[in-house]
Amino acid sequence: MSHTEPVKVEVGLGDRAYDILIGPGLLSSAGTEIADRLPGTRAAIVTDENVAAAHLETLKAGLEKGGIQAAVITLRAGEKTKSFAHLEEVVDSVLAAKLERRDVVIALGGGVIGDLAGFAAGIVRRGMNFVQVPTSLLAQVDSSVGGKTGINSARGKNLVGVFNQPKLVLADTGVLDTLPIREFRAGYAELAKYGLIDRPGFFAWLEENWQKVFAGGQERTEAIADACRAKADVVARDEFETGDRALLNLGHTFGHALEAATNYDGARLVHGEGVAIGMALAHRFSARLNLASPDDAERVEAHLRAVGLPWRMADISGELPDAEALLGFITQDKKVSRGALTFILTRGVGQAFIAKDVPPSEVLSFLKACHPDGSR
Amino acid sequence: MSHTEPVKVEVGLGDRAYDILIGPGLLSSAGTEIADRLPGTRAAIVTDENVAAAHLETLKAGLEKGGIQAAVITLRAGEKTKSFAHLEEVVDSVLAAKLERRDVVIALGGGVIGDLAGFAAGIVRRGMNFVQVPTSLLAQVDSSVGGKTGINSARGKNLVGVFNQPKLVLADTGVLDTLPIREFRAGYAELAKYGLIDRPGFFAWLEENWQKVFAGGQERTEAIADACRAKADVVARDEFETGDRALLNLGHTFGHALEAATNYDGARLVHGEGVAIGMALAHRFSARLNLASPDDAERVEAHLRAVGLPWRMADISGELPDAEALLGFITQDKKVSRGALTFILTRGVGQAFIAKDVPPSEVLSFLKACHPDGSR
Repeated sequence: MSHTEPVKVEVGLGDRAYDILIGPGLLSSAGTEIADRLPGTRAAIVTDENVAAAHLETLKAGLEKGGIQAAVITLRAGEKTKSFAHLEEVVDSVLAAKLERRDVVIALGGGVIGDLAGFAAGIVRRGMNFVQVPTSLLAQVDSSVGGKTGINSARGKNLVGVFNQPKLVLADTGVLDTLPIREFRAGYAELAKYGLIDRPGFFAWLEENWQKVFAGGQERTEAIADACRAKADVVARDEFETGDRALLNLGHTFGHALEAATNYDGARLVHGEGVAIGMALAHRFSARLNLASPDDAERVEAHLRAVGLPWRMADISGELPDAEALLGFITQDKKVSRGALTFILTRGVGQAFIAKDVPPSEVLSFLKACHPDGSR
Repeated sequence: MSHTEPVKVEVGLGDRAYDILIGPGLLSSAGTEIADRLPGTRAAIVTDENVAAAHLETLKAGLEKGGIQAAVITLRAGEKTKSFAHLEEVVDSVLAAKLERRDVVIALGGGVIGDLAGFAAGIVRRGMNFVQVPTSLLAQVDSSVGGKTGINSARGKNLVGVFNQPKLVLADTGVLDTLPIREFRAGYAELAKYGLIDRPGFFAWLEENWQKVFAGGQERTEAIADACRAKADVVARDEFETGDRALLNLGHTFGHALEAATNYDGARLVHGEGVAIGMALAHRFSARLNLASPDDAERVEAHLRAVGLPWRMADISGELPDAEALLGFITQDKKVSRGALTFILTRGVGQAFIAKDVPPSEVLSFLKACHPDGSR
């Protein structure tokens, strides 16, 4: 299928509105796209060693076509980079490059780089321009939309940061062909999430067409664009997460607990996989609470299984802490408000809702019931 | 003069609008004022050792009257506290106190504490509630209005931070009686600045009434309220400093250069004193460029002299770097844009304006002419 023009998704946030461009080859046209929106800008690219090896030269050449010179800040790959120490390093490097407020920080990488570089851009000179060039599927459909940036604290993930909307997102769908399949799948979990929240038609389309999304081509571009539109809709309604935006956490409460329970060991569980299991658990838990039909839970589990994603706790290698300990990770999660448990539950595929005051005792007995060691 | 109700200044920033309350005794009523606006909140007070010794117990008792329990984070006093290391310390302490987004960080102190605590509040959980309780005159008229927060970098002051509007400012005019006179005077320079920018009537009133402002009472409250109103007007027009807000930098370009030239040694020059000399120099420079009458420069100098403020470079103890080196400090200043020199100049008292493209050669010859070692 021939398609040269990227798909454009507009994120409607008033004076913070911006475009997401989605399609193959966008690294090469980055310079003109950025220069059109930020004439005369200089740039600093923040990236990690792995992404730099694969894509940095392409992006730099693309920027030069638009007359944009860029300093480069290359960090080690991995979640540990989202720390105060690396934030200070990036901030200092951007200042050392003598960039001004109207210049731009470009995040070239996955969610870790986007979160860190976006936070740095948000605080250097109290806010510089910021452009996202997400190179993972997860980052293209999730962390590049909505303006959440941040780092981890010893007390939890993403506890420190700012809301900082980019001026532009360039989601080059071609770079996704260089991803390991496991990472692509993990990103796919977040993509499917938008169907499960409030777009049942999108979920049904994915059930039919997921192989084409994995293969690349126009279906991949359209699926990413649909997910970005879905997230942009939620974010436009609730930029600062005082209400509906919490729906985006579908699967994340269980998922974060499982990530914590596996010590964030990516060999055992990466974020998107945690979300996949978390979404399946959220549907199963909703069925147990008689909110949704068990058929919906089965349908979600079947799709995750079909694409090769883990969907139950038993799919995680190695031992897990017991149900009480898992509940402990949940109550430590930042989405706990005033001691009550808030979950994203569902009335069925595409009918997620925010449930406050979920009794911890119900969560515990559910965790016991579906724990792989539950019979012991 | 009896006056029990505080004066209220409203800062009109749409959904970020907030009140500044000004008057004696506000520490004691902090609890009810905060609980009225943020029902059910818990709090963390960020302060320094000196301010804690003088005012912490009063504030804590005041908070308890409103049913507000507060954790306390006490830092060492001084500009060095505005660092990444202390930012991380405050962030971690707020998280350790298990505060949530709807809870409040209270800055009890001068500009350093306000800038640091406001920045921390702006990034913990991507933004918590924030209340300023400024205890210096400088902080009451300047740093508590407008939402600028931040820390220093090795590459310059205030280069890292966020715009973060407080939910409330409590300017207790009674605490100012505990300030050393030199510090009160330094704050007075920023107060007089608002007359010089665009309120000639206020400047004339200060020329008549400054002794009463120093003495305390209703004139002090009114003068602080007028300065806050003046700043709030500018900030409401240009919250993110893309235009008019730069007027607030009157005196600051020369002032920052002199602070840097004295290695930020408070024994030689504190910020408000640098601003005093900077304002006098800005008027004298404007006269030299035939923009304003020398009579206005003389009038400004005379008033600063009358209140006991330094008003010329010769008033700084010890040797200063030569004019070329001073110009170097100016060109390093963050308000340099695209290599051109931007100054706040004036057409006379109350008629300041933003001058872009001031020739560096003019600045240099002016600095030579008024340098205390100029005759050598």
